[in-house]
Amino acid sequence: MRSAEQYIAGILKRDRVLLARAITVIESDRETDRTLAEQILEGVLPHTGTAHRIGVTGIPGAGKSTLIDALGMYLIHDRNESVAVLTVDPSSPISGGSILGDKTRMEGLSREANAFIRPAPTRGHLGGVARRTRDATLLCEAAGFSTVIIETVGVGQSEAEVRSMADFVVLVLVAGAGDELQGIKKGILEAVDLVVINKADGGNVEAAERARREYESALHYAPSREGGWESRAITASARTGHGVAELWAAVLQHKATLSGQIAESRKKQLLAWTDELLREALDRMLTAHDGVRAARKALAGEVTSGAKSPFQAARQLLAIVLGDPDDPLRY
Amino acid sequence: MRSAEQYIAGILKRDRVLLARAITVIESDRETDRTLAEQILEGVLPHTGTAHRIGVTGIPGAGKSTLIDALGMYLIHDRNESVAVLTVDPSSPISGGSILGDKTRMEGLSREANAFIRPAPTRGHLGGVARRTRDATLLCEAAGFSTVIIETVGVGQSEAEVRSMADFVVLVLVAGAGDELQGIKKGILEAVDLVVINKADGGNVEAAERARREYESALHYAPSREGGWESRAITASARTGHGVAELWAAVLQHKATLSGQIAESRKKQLLAWTDELLREALDRMLTAHDGVRAARKALAGEVTSGAKSPFQAARQLLAIVLGDPDDPLRY
Repeated sequence: MRSAEQYIAGILKRDRVLLARAITVIESDRETDRTLAEQILEGVLPHTGTAHRIGVTGIPGAGKSTLIDALGMYLIHDRNESVAVLTVDPSSPISGGSILGDKTRMEGLSREANAFIRPAPTRGHLGGVARRTRDATLLCEAAGFSTVIIETVGVGQSEAEVRSMADFVVLVLVAGAGDELQGIKKGILEAVDLVVINKADGGNVEAAERARREYESALHYAPSREGGWESRAITASARTGHGVAELWAAVLQHKATLSGQIAESRKKQLLAWTDELLREALDRMLTAHDGVRAARKALAGEVTSGAKSPFQAARQLLAIVLGDPDDPLRY
Repeated sequence: MRSAEQYIAGILKRDRVLLARAITVIESDRETDRTLAEQILEGVLPHTGTAHRIGVTGIPGAGKSTLIDALGMYLIHDRNESVAVLTVDPSSPISGGSILGDKTRMEGLSREANAFIRPAPTRGHLGGVARRTRDATLLCEAAGFSTVIIETVGVGQSEAEVRSMADFVVLVLVAGAGDELQGIKKGILEAVDLVVINKADGGNVEAAERARREYESALHYAPSREGGWESRAITASARTGHGVAELWAAVLQHKATLSGQIAESRKKQLLAWTDELLREALDRMLTAHDGVRAARKALAGEVTSGAKSPFQAARQLLAIVLGDPDDPLRY
């Protein structure tokens, strides 16, 4: 087994094998890996914070991956950037099947020396997705990738989640029946910085432009994003390359306009991380604490039979954790 | 302010005003409401567990609400059931805007004496959605509604979430470009008991039937649901009523086949609830504990400036919570 120091040194030299293995360590649930992961993260932390962090979300079938591929190729060849892509996948909690599918759908980037693609882990509980991605983002930044793209799937919760990890959030859509706009505009559009109507090529150009105008106008009525950023809608095509430069221009403009805002939001992310570590430690304590574990076992039967309510059981367990005779649910 | 006893008595008599107000209490973040909510829930708990709990999920625009309306009307008029509908909405965490929109889209049910519709709260943090819905389900059951329908929106995470609250999960889709199937079949289909291709009416019938066959075959290759239930795909139309009776027949067949399974899963839900109460109490302690609060404030500057890592800060805070001089992250 490698030491944390070896991993850290490897990551800082952008050793892709060690970077990939370090991400495997942070994705692991094993106790020893967890300690190692913390050491690696603490070690690389001073070397992070410099990359563009871009979240890309949208419904399945909107062509997110091919658009990311096109954006990544543009960044590497026309903008001299290096690109890491992390895929977030709300995996099935049952078999671990992947919603996004298994095949690599970034054919250009997968052959580039200045790109690093990390598909979502094939298992993992939902709560761990955000943490794993945040940690992997830090490792990629420490490895010197100047842009980290976080791809996620879904409509609804994913925008808010990716928001907590990214500086700039892109929602990828395709022109559709039109009435779908009514369904999603209100809540979702507030959490995105740019709407991209994808697949605007061939016979699809007109419908895409119509959809773009609709979203543009919906964005106009949505509350302004923090810091006064005016979210906008553009059309794009991964196939023709249309809109890719415009997408990147929006990222740069957002960064120039909101640099103070972004720094502030990253500070908040560090504090949120602290809280998360605290919560996780307390959570683990619930299963690792001998007295609690024994009491949980004993109480389980009473709860499932209805003899004790979950409230009564929780009170009893908490009193054991804290060694507190008074009502501990009062906190 | 009403007492918990007044609320409980009102709910058990199916006093709709008190039921609605009790749900408002459980949705509230106020400290006094929280205590009241716990008392109400503990009081009604012995009167719960009898309803069909049905989760309905799907992408925006699939016509979930009108289908629920049609199903509800069928249940009330043809099956002598009573129906409560709870809407889960992954609300925008920024302004609280609703993804599902505000207007009541269940015109039939909204006029029925034997129906109760509770739209999602217009604010609330994401983590609270599942809890609020679970609690509201229990109140509706105690009020004697024989069917509780939980409507949620989204593709990806929502199936798994609604699964933890429902006995039977329906995924509502519409016939589309076809290639979308590739995007979602693998992970999602494992978490649903029935796929409904909605809007199978007029010129849409053939496309819906084609989509149904595709999903049917995809379901065939997905791992069987727990207990051996074979998920299937049907077509339906809220407009013509086609498929509604078939949907309900699937619910009943599932219940008949898997009654032991359902009882088991409800027991697990009680234990999960206990754990959740514990976690919440510990969580609140982090902000309510005087020493922790002061230390958090003091540490925030060091964390955001990079002087301390989140790991160091979390260790220090946890030592205060537990009064433990050793490394508390070891749990």
